[in-house]
Amino acid sequence: MDFSSKLLENAVNEVSRLPGIGKRTALRLVLYLLKQPKENTKYLVEALTHLRKDVKSCEKCHNISDTELCDICSNPKRNGEIVCVVEDIRDVMAIENTAQYRGLYHVLGGKISPIEGIGPQNLQIGSLVEKVKNGEVKELIFALSSTMEGDTTNFYIYKQIEKYGVTTSTIARGISVGDELEYADEVTLGRSIVNRIPFEQSIKG
Amino acid sequence: MDFSSKLLENAVNEVSRLPGIGKRTALRLVLYLLKQPKENTKYLVEALTHLRKDVKSCEKCHNISDTELCDICSNPKRNGEIVCVVEDIRDVMAIENTAQYRGLYHVLGGKISPIEGIGPQNLQIGSLVEKVKNGEVKELIFALSSTMEGDTTNFYIYKQIEKYGVTTSTIARGISVGDELEYADEVTLGRSIVNRIPFEQSIKG
Repeated sequence: MDFSSKLLENAVNEVSRLPGIGKRTALRLVLYLLKQPKENTKYLVEALTHLRKDVKSCEKCHNISDTELCDICSNPKRNGEIVCVVEDIRDVMAIENTAQYRGLYHVLGGKISPIEGIGPQNLQIGSLVEKVKNGEVKELIFALSSTMEGDTTNFYIYKQIEKYGVTTSTIARGISVGDELEYADEVTLGRSIVNRIPFEQSIKG
Repeated sequence: MDFSSKLLENAVNEVSRLPGIGKRTALRLVLYLLKQPKENTKYLVEALTHLRKDVKSCEKCHNISDTELCDICSNPKRNGEIVCVVEDIRDVMAIENTAQYRGLYHVLGGKISPIEGIGPQNLQIGSLVEKVKNGEVKELIFALSSTMEGDTTNFYIYKQIEKYGVTTSTIARGISVGDELEYADEVTLGRSIVNRIPFEQSIKG
């Protein structure tokens, strides 16, 4: 791509470093900013700068937070004895949206993935094991993606905490609510039969 | 979406104002920046700030430029008597990439579109008419999109400059190079027959 302006080229290059954004999309975004009032770019730039400078990681659960201790960890109404282990902050947001969970979280910051060069030492596993060891936690819920990396991570953590006698569970795998049975893959369908639940329990919703 | 951090929420809101970027994509982009070294956000922010502050519009063709007169307009090797009328800077880049055109450009900054509230007064039409009136221009090539808005804009400009006796043309409409005939729409195919070109001319490439 030939640019008529070095400033434009530079901006397009920086924007296209973002994941899933190619040069053409970057150019579209940058030209859009140029057509908008100058304030819009200013607000965007300020929001990103402040975020990168001032955002913190909750020292207890490693969730993204504006304070040392996040709103969930500092909420006295939440049950501190149950901890849900998730990959990243998006999973916390997804589970919070269900309004079904009143325990705390532990954000690992990723999954063990040798292909991407992510080992246990790159994740927040040590502090989780520490929490279990101290007896703060009575139950761990593994809520990682149902992939090989997710399962590996679950298993790795399980092996570390097994000896402390904490209750562990994983979120249920099964047919999505609203899904047609015939389109479900056989692994999911198989698991949903093996892990079937009492009907009385299912209608309680 | 419930955010655990005001700073994060703010950044996601600003990023999601960009066209084609929803809240989920914005969150993905912002979390990506948070995982990267702080310098990456700094470079991005600086590139956007400099662009918005220092970028100029070429005073002759209204192309985006770092200087008062863009590289194309200030190039003495280009033919100043031919002007190609385009919608925006992306079209200049596309035509420059073909390396087939050695004239100048005139960037309108959009098309006449009553639905989007864009009238002739919002576009750089006045300065184009002025150029033609001054006798600087011998030929105008309309290279707008082949849509109703593009055709309307072509016609509006044509009506304004008709009386000055300048040669006008539009880029050829026809079957794309490499396209199968059977999949072409009938309007394009029809036009390509009406505006057929001598075979000797077509093989010169």
